[in-house]
Amino acid sequence: MPDKIRIAIDAMGGDHGPSVVLPGAAIALERHPDIEFLLFGDQAVVAPLLDGLPKLKEKAIFTHTDVSIRMDDKPSQALRYGRGKSSMWLAIDAVKQDAADVAVSAGNTGALMAMSWFNLKMMKGIERPAIAGLWPTLKGDSVVLDVGASIGADEHHLINLAVMGSAMARVLFDIERPTVGLLNIGVEEVKGLEQVREAGRLLREGDFPHFDYQGFVEGDDIGKGTVDVVVTEGFAGNIALKAAEGTAKQFAQYLRSAMSRTWRARLGYLLAKPAFQLLREKMDPRKANGGVFLGLNGVVIKSHGGADAEGYAAAIDMGYDMIRYELLAKIGQDLARDLEARSAAQAAKEAVTEPTANGAAS
Amino acid sequence: MPDKIRIAIDAMGGDHGPSVVLPGAAIALERHPDIEFLLFGDQAVVAPLLDGLPKLKEKAIFTHTDVSIRMDDKPSQALRYGRGKSSMWLAIDAVKQDAADVAVSAGNTGALMAMSWFNLKMMKGIERPAIAGLWPTLKGDSVVLDVGASIGADEHHLINLAVMGSAMARVLFDIERPTVGLLNIGVEEVKGLEQVREAGRLLREGDFPHFDYQGFVEGDDIGKGTVDVVVTEGFAGNIALKAAEGTAKQFAQYLRSAMSRTWRARLGYLLAKPAFQLLREKMDPRKANGGVFLGLNGVVIKSHGGADAEGYAAAIDMGYDMIRYELLAKIGQDLARDLEARSAAQAAKEAVTEPTANGAAS
Repeated sequence: MPDKIRIAIDAMGGDHGPSVVLPGAAIALERHPDIEFLLFGDQAVVAPLLDGLPKLKEKAIFTHTDVSIRMDDKPSQALRYGRGKSSMWLAIDAVKQDAADVAVSAGNTGALMAMSWFNLKMMKGIERPAIAGLWPTLKGDSVVLDVGASIGADEHHLINLAVMGSAMARVLFDIERPTVGLLNIGVEEVKGLEQVREAGRLLREGDFPHFDYQGFVEGDDIGKGTVDVVVTEGFAGNIALKAAEGTAKQFAQYLRSAMSRTWRARLGYLLAKPAFQLLREKMDPRKANGGVFLGLNGVVIKSHGGADAEGYAAAIDMGYDMIRYELLAKIGQDLARDLEARSAAQAAKEAVTEPTANGAAS
Repeated sequence: MPDKIRIAIDAMGGDHGPSVVLPGAAIALERHPDIEFLLFGDQAVVAPLLDGLPKLKEKAIFTHTDVSIRMDDKPSQALRYGRGKSSMWLAIDAVKQDAADVAVSAGNTGALMAMSWFNLKMMKGIERPAIAGLWPTLKGDSVVLDVGASIGADEHHLINLAVMGSAMARVLFDIERPTVGLLNIGVEEVKGLEQVREAGRLLREGDFPHFDYQGFVEGDDIGKGTVDVVVTEGFAGNIALKAAEGTAKQFAQYLRSAMSRTWRARLGYLLAKPAFQLLREKMDPRKANGGVFLGLNGVVIKSHGGADAEGYAAAIDMGYDMIRYELLAKIGQDLARDLEARSAAQAAKEAVTEPTANGAAS
């Protein structure tokens, strides 16, 4: 195990920039004194804030750049003006150069994904990156992926998502063999998307010692915590995640307005305040903040752009755990093992079908 | 306007069958005394229940059949043994024969869809049916479709969904020109699915006087009530709907356990009980019960299989409104108008490109 965890921070990313990012880093440092930060950003803004956070300043190496990526730029634009010199690029590049173990940014998701992909490149055996999120459930948390890195997924990509997501669950939840489900719908005769059915068949028939495939799950299984890892392509995954976030906000707003409607309700609220506090903590979206980019040669964490310092600290914590418990090594081993198993199966299949060649083999 | 609304009921459908369906019909009848019911089911079970509901019995014509569709049969199986004689088929057939205006069933969704499609056939201009649901939002309710009738949708199907969903919103919400959004994700460079972008372009450029197209919306816009009608293909739509239902249940469970943890919380709960009651009503999934099958030559309503009598009554209410405010006529007019406009546009385009034929026109 490494004796310190080196975290590269895009200090300029997010709706609030350094004024949230730096206090967030300071909170994470209190919890993990073995972090060393590499901060990238504009000296004029960062330096005065750092002076107010002496403990962070002591454990941080600061690099100035006056280029930062705007929140609403297209990835191609961001690459054009930000490549090689923006705070976002420099944080990712620190991982590439092995100066840092993980990069964290609250900046523009599309730009962060494009720069990470462009600079770190894909792991062997993976074609496209994925974003994995933590989803609070009745049983704890589940890993859900892909929540929006790419649209559509064939059966092989879905299996790679299962491999990467289960490695992440092993790291985060400290379980030996996480359960995995494929997100599907249960209405049609032949249930769900063809690629999802095919991935289900391969997962059922294959040999995956590092996770336990449990079959299809539906949208309401996510919140129930039916499985540790929910695998889906990015379009449906992103929509599900945001629909659930919307519902949680809706519920919170209904509750607030109900509890302030009458004197009796307000008094009841005061009495039950610690219980409401507990509820708020349970549903606190900040605790699940941090999307993990998977499939790249390096770990990059995306914090929600609107996160506050506590939320940003949670994203750093997530990056910390990924490194501390060696996520990439685990994914690498599992992938290598699976690729070997898959090509062995393929070779066996070819050997069997060879004698009946000329299209006679079906 | 018709002087009575004739509703055909599959009395055997649902997890609880006639013991929930008949009391549900009785509740709906109290609210709408101009309903006349056609009940289909097994006399041995239905007759004694009807004797206990004299008001319903008086307004109902009962037809016996001893075939009912099981909840977990595949659509093809259900068609094989249930076509022409099951309570589900007979309810749908009553609509086909114009003996009823609308059919309601809490039975197996796949079987109900297959039988409705097979028997009622598609409306002119529509290729595949859709299921539209009501989604409670911070501003009231929105229509969301398709929530699981079919997987995948090209731009033309998405536009048909917009036309049908907006007709439903006009009927249910009594607004002249509902707002419509296309569900999409906002992460990628070229945002979202190609078909969704193409549908967006056609909706932006086209002339749709009966609704107001507002552009793309994301998953969390649904609960906010950003638009009256949310259009999506069925896979993502079903997953979003169930993910949101799961989150609502999760929240309710957290709240219950928080409020019973300490004496203080319990006392607070007692004081604020009317407020909690209000909240419960707001989030009551029974009120939004009822998926409407759209695109068919007839209206069929699917009640949730696990609905109680109050929930089932809500599904009947929805069917009632659809007929009372002439949903099918509205959809038919809008579709006819659009088809005309689209072929006029097509003709104009062809006329323009004709002079440069031989592949020179691009």
